[in-house]
Amino acid sequence: MAAQPADTVGILGGGQLGRMLVLAAARLGLKTHVFAPEADSPAFDVAALRTIGAYDDREALARFAATVNVITYEFENIPAATAAYLTGLRPVYPAADALAVTQDRLSEKAFLGSLGIPTAPYVGVDDAGGLARAVAQIGRPAILKTRRFGYDGKGQTMIREGSDLAAVFRSLGAAPCILEGVVPFVREVSVVAARAIDGSFAAYDVCENEHAHHVLSRSRVPAALAPATARQALAIAQRIAAALNYVGVLAVEMFVIDDPQAGPFVNEIAPRVHNSGHWTLDGAVTSQFEQHIRAICGWPLGSARRHGDVEMRNLLGEEVGQWRDLLAEKGACVHLYGKREVRPGRKMGHVTFVRSERAPVLPPNSGQN
Amino acid sequence: MAAQPADTVGILGGGQLGRMLVLAAARLGLKTHVFAPEADSPAFDVAALRTIGAYDDREALARFAATVNVITYEFENIPAATAAYLTGLRPVYPAADALAVTQDRLSEKAFLGSLGIPTAPYVGVDDAGGLARAVAQIGRPAILKTRRFGYDGKGQTMIREGSDLAAVFRSLGAAPCILEGVVPFVREVSVVAARAIDGSFAAYDVCENEHAHHVLSRSRVPAALAPATARQALAIAQRIAAALNYVGVLAVEMFVIDDPQAGPFVNEIAPRVHNSGHWTLDGAVTSQFEQHIRAICGWPLGSARRHGDVEMRNLLGEEVGQWRDLLAEKGACVHLYGKREVRPGRKMGHVTFVRSERAPVLPPNSGQN
Repeated sequence: MAAQPADTVGILGGGQLGRMLVLAAARLGLKTHVFAPEADSPAFDVAALRTIGAYDDREALARFAATVNVITYEFENIPAATAAYLTGLRPVYPAADALAVTQDRLSEKAFLGSLGIPTAPYVGVDDAGGLARAVAQIGRPAILKTRRFGYDGKGQTMIREGSDLAAVFRSLGAAPCILEGVVPFVREVSVVAARAIDGSFAAYDVCENEHAHHVLSRSRVPAALAPATARQALAIAQRIAAALNYVGVLAVEMFVIDDPQAGPFVNEIAPRVHNSGHWTLDGAVTSQFEQHIRAICGWPLGSARRHGDVEMRNLLGEEVGQWRDLLAEKGACVHLYGKREVRPGRKMGHVTFVRSERAPVLPPNSGQN
Repeated sequence: MAAQPADTVGILGGGQLGRMLVLAAARLGLKTHVFAPEADSPAFDVAALRTIGAYDDREALARFAATVNVITYEFENIPAATAAYLTGLRPVYPAADALAVTQDRLSEKAFLGSLGIPTAPYVGVDDAGGLARAVAQIGRPAILKTRRFGYDGKGQTMIREGSDLAAVFRSLGAAPCILEGVVPFVREVSVVAARAIDGSFAAYDVCENEHAHHVLSRSRVPAALAPATARQALAIAQRIAAALNYVGVLAVEMFVIDDPQAGPFVNEIAPRVHNSGHWTLDGAVTSQFEQHIRAICGWPLGSARRHGDVEMRNLLGEEVGQWRDLLAEKGACVHLYGKREVRPGRKMGHVTFVRSERAPVLPPNSGQN
């Protein structure tokens, strides 16, 4: 059942998350087969086997599955039917039902509610009339989000005083939505954690996140939280993972409000490696990518210990042009994703700084360390 | 001149060193093209482009060169003619003349002598008669080594009292040799360091090495040396790199004797990333592999700072069978090279332990960290 070194891991999706999963698998002696629709997928550059295919091309999926021992994915918007089809052919982790819960914001909120985990107040919205009733219930401001296929602020819009509700609903494609109340948070944090097939669990320290235009711009570890709040955040992630019988890495995004008595509110669950865990490549004993590969292979999890206090900054769009200056910056760990085309806001790379107190031994007259 | 992200790095040699160079290049957004004679080369699994070719196949080399922006190699036994030929087509780092000096033990010793750097006493040996004269000069025991193509104890033999000199010379193929006196060392250490195109230099802390059957079995950082001796070792590496006008990572293996007044003796120079630097993947801000890629691309070197005290153990031959237990060991960073065939003494992987004092935040009831 469990994979062996020299086995092949199949990965759906060829972006930077897939690329970093490939690199982590390679460290562990595994081969990888990346399946992605776009010919210029960054993960193709490092995978032993590559399939350019659509997620609904069953013939291509079957050929892909025949070459691999276990299958995973780099993002949660894989069609549920694709995951279900592949599950009949090979082990798929995280399992299709965990994917189903988390790729629909309404079922995700209901799942969290069933565990007694605080979230923003919410109401499902199926049409413009439903939106009017929902706004009457939740109040303004509130955030209307499509139930599916949202990420990085896509598929959501703020409803304020005077917003034209019918127009707002149409602007999101008149798709099934969820209306969420606004949590008056003082910090956005996330817990990145892994759960193995045997149920063991390892979480990284809580990470504090800053967003710009709905895209993560910066993460710091540890988050500036009261120890009790940090423990609550980690416990929430562990309960979610256990309840989903989850296998792999997941990230739980949370809001912390300005009330020391209140615990964190869960914003959303990402059933995959996560941008706010990129710091683990340089700042932890085991990276989130290796942790995910270990989990889906049925192997023991590694240590989630940090090497120091860490800051990670995304390089978005033209910011990647700073790469040479960043390489020269003392202690900077620079990651570039090999994307040929720079687009505004596109995730082009990231840079990590790990602050530990250890002093290096320098050679005499060393120009650089 | 300097490479850009999304450029392609050409690597001669497809073993584990090539594989780890590919992974480091990928972190920096680069593509790689691996050229190696063996179809089952571990580096092929992760390279964007792969050529199975002989090192004297100029047509294949020219096609390879046409696809890449800069060329390097994973081991020093690339034929000098190959390096010279490629140098006419693309930038090659380290340069062919550094390769020439270090791939011949006699010219390497002469080079070190010209810098006033202590080595074992030595004499060149061209024939059996020359060996007899050399033994008369050096004394016994002494070590006869072929001038070229030796590594991991291959191409060398100990000459003791009673050794049949003519038979020993024949056993090494009657090839041009060097006879070296035995240095009564108490520690074997190495300095892994990088020199950039602009002459800047960054060394990792001195590493202490244990060998079994002439193959590295274990490295520890920092080496248990007096601070003055460690500084001397680092300074020697810097002088060697500067004198060779070296670009890339090199390793200098040294002997330390039981005399606090004596500095280190240089045993040999490896013009490449080195097994005793594998710990940097997990234990340093910048790995030796990334450092090498930065250097050959004309980019600034990264920080060589350690995250803690480090121990690295090679997994040789059947030892790789321990992989699952090692993955479960607390704090172990396991690396497997994806080699299908286990052979006695073959380098199959390595495992690193980094000891820092930082305590993790554990979630309640966490089964594992």
